[in-house]
Amino acid sequence: MFNNENQFSFSRDGVKNEIFIRNPMKTIAIIPCILALLISSARAGDPLPSWQDTAPKKAIVAFVAEVTKPGSRDFVPAAERIATFDNDGTLWAEQPVYFQICFAFDRIKALAPQHPEWTNQEPFASVLRGDLKSALAGGDQAQLEMTIATQSGMTTDEYEKSVTDWIATARHPQTRRPYTGMVYQPMLELLAYLRANGFKTFIVSGGGIDFMRPWSEKVYGIPPEQVVGSSLKTKFELRNGKPVLVSLPEIDFIDDNVGKPVGIESHIGRRPIASFGNSDGDLQMMQWTAAGSGPHFCLFVHHTDAKREWAYDRKSADGRFDKALDEALAKGWTVVSMKDDWKVVYAGDKK
Amino acid sequence: MFNNENQFSFSRDGVKNEIFIRNPMKTIAIIPCILALLISSARAGDPLPSWQDTAPKKAIVAFVAEVTKPGSRDFVPAAERIATFDNDGTLWAEQPVYFQICFAFDRIKALAPQHPEWTNQEPFASVLRGDLKSALAGGDQAQLEMTIATQSGMTTDEYEKSVTDWIATARHPQTRRPYTGMVYQPMLELLAYLRANGFKTFIVSGGGIDFMRPWSEKVYGIPPEQVVGSSLKTKFELRNGKPVLVSLPEIDFIDDNVGKPVGIESHIGRRPIASFGNSDGDLQMMQWTAAGSGPHFCLFVHHTDAKREWAYDRKSADGRFDKALDEALAKGWTVVSMKDDWKVVYAGDKK
Repeated sequence: MFNNENQFSFSRDGVKNEIFIRNPMKTIAIIPCILALLISSARAGDPLPSWQDTAPKKAIVAFVAEVTKPGSRDFVPAAERIATFDNDGTLWAEQPVYFQICFAFDRIKALAPQHPEWTNQEPFASVLRGDLKSALAGGDQAQLEMTIATQSGMTTDEYEKSVTDWIATARHPQTRRPYTGMVYQPMLELLAYLRANGFKTFIVSGGGIDFMRPWSEKVYGIPPEQVVGSSLKTKFELRNGKPVLVSLPEIDFIDDNVGKPVGIESHIGRRPIASFGNSDGDLQMMQWTAAGSGPHFCLFVHHTDAKREWAYDRKSADGRFDKALDEALAKGWTVVSMKDDWKVVYAGDKK
Repeated sequence: MFNNENQFSFSRDGVKNEIFIRNPMKTIAIIPCILALLISSARAGDPLPSWQDTAPKKAIVAFVAEVTKPGSRDFVPAAERIATFDNDGTLWAEQPVYFQICFAFDRIKALAPQHPEWTNQEPFASVLRGDLKSALAGGDQAQLEMTIATQSGMTTDEYEKSVTDWIATARHPQTRRPYTGMVYQPMLELLAYLRANGFKTFIVSGGGIDFMRPWSEKVYGIPPEQVVGSSLKTKFELRNGKPVLVSLPEIDFIDDNVGKPVGIESHIGRRPIASFGNSDGDLQMMQWTAAGSGPHFCLFVHHTDAKREWAYDRKSADGRFDKALDEALAKGWTVVSMKDDWKVVYAGDKK
């Protein structure tokens, strides 16, 4: 598909092995390489070891086999193998509140000395009193105000540093784990498995694009250019002759619900053939994926495991899974029960 | 950098050969492959044959060698080798008007029967009379109105089809070539050369993102997810139960001048280490690139060839190159003279 790039591939044990050679003169020379790889590939194991051998895993493997088999009716060229993943509740946990809100709480406490007015201004006053329930009582509007307060006026470099510092040190209030230790091991395996089969993996999240990018590559193997999320408006300016990008106190885009297909179109410009989510906020992304003319795969993670994680769905404030659950059941989309279909939940629990 | 991906590379004749193996179990098996490639790489030729052997080519090759040499002071990991290219006047021609305006003219003529009011409404009336000079007299505002008229209300699929049909058949009014025959051969070679050296190439253009994506992969080897451009707002809706994305008659983003670094941050989330442009509209992209903490490369194409293409700079309506020319000269950025530095101009002229 691309200039100056040759690609060879073969499958074994459900893993597609791909070799790219970025120089077309080398075609002949690759033959011994392919033979050597064929021999060694016999050692390749189960690409999804943290998944139970239940229906969801079988459906994933069957879909991948179908779209990657050259000559098959449902073959999809590698360039069109776009997979989109929600983040909160799909790739990492989201209880008792979205982790970005935990970040905002910590930032508000850190910034409070510069904002004496916050002591009398909600939701900031509640955050500073440690009354997080009241701070969140203002719903989306309160969360938005907190996001704006912790980002606007900062340069992109400053904000990135604040996220990087926080994610390296902060701990979840209940599990006491680092937040990046609460990513889901089965989903890490799924990301790697799709990439090994020529898929390009994207995050499409209602969370802040600038909040995810500083760690998405290290944690998920997803580079910043493959992260789509909500954003504030940004302004370019020269400060003492040095160019900076500054976040403004104004919403640019909300990448949730009806926003997700819009964000996908804006950033990717191709329709996904596979999408992964966990809540009503992902429903339109699934509808958009399922309406493609070729093969497609839609999967929801259902939080059913009160022991190892949290159990919630139709009535949860964060990650409500109600309309989307009905539509998934009606349309036969894959629904993963964390309790029944995952051997391991968090990456940190991997043996 | 990525999970489950191993990378090997070596350089010969200025071309970096990279081998990616998307399965970490195969490390041992790759050794015979590397040996075979080393032997065959002696055949690799000049990667930039349409460039004269003058200063710009030497500067490009020196920069690429510097950032790709493992262990060198200026080595840049492959994941951070982001290169951004303006489109109009940088990758293809832009005279006597931006080609997207030619598309708008043709669309207005085709849509006129459904818009009787256009006979008395500028700039449409002038377009329908064939008086293109008057149609363009309204400047940016008139061009914007024409863009909105030819896109808003359409679904993304409908608009894509209209672009694909047009680009396959339309001819440039002066050269009578297909527009895609007016892409610059030296720039195609540069794109391929950078990709062969592990760069990820992006378009960052003031033109419409939806206008470029239908053909950017085929013509430039740049997939839709690596195209950044101007856009209208888009809305997701269900039409008879089928999801569609519809363009609205409202600007979403102008990816030009101060907008280019903003578009880069939004879509890529990493600062480019190399940028390529031709006009004042690219100046802020160059400033943003040059302000990075590591090595960087900024190049402007100067339209100096009245015989093979067009000669214009400080006073041109489209592609004005004035402030950016001054800054390029002051800062020692690379300025390519099409007349002196390119053996061939259009891809169609390639021997």
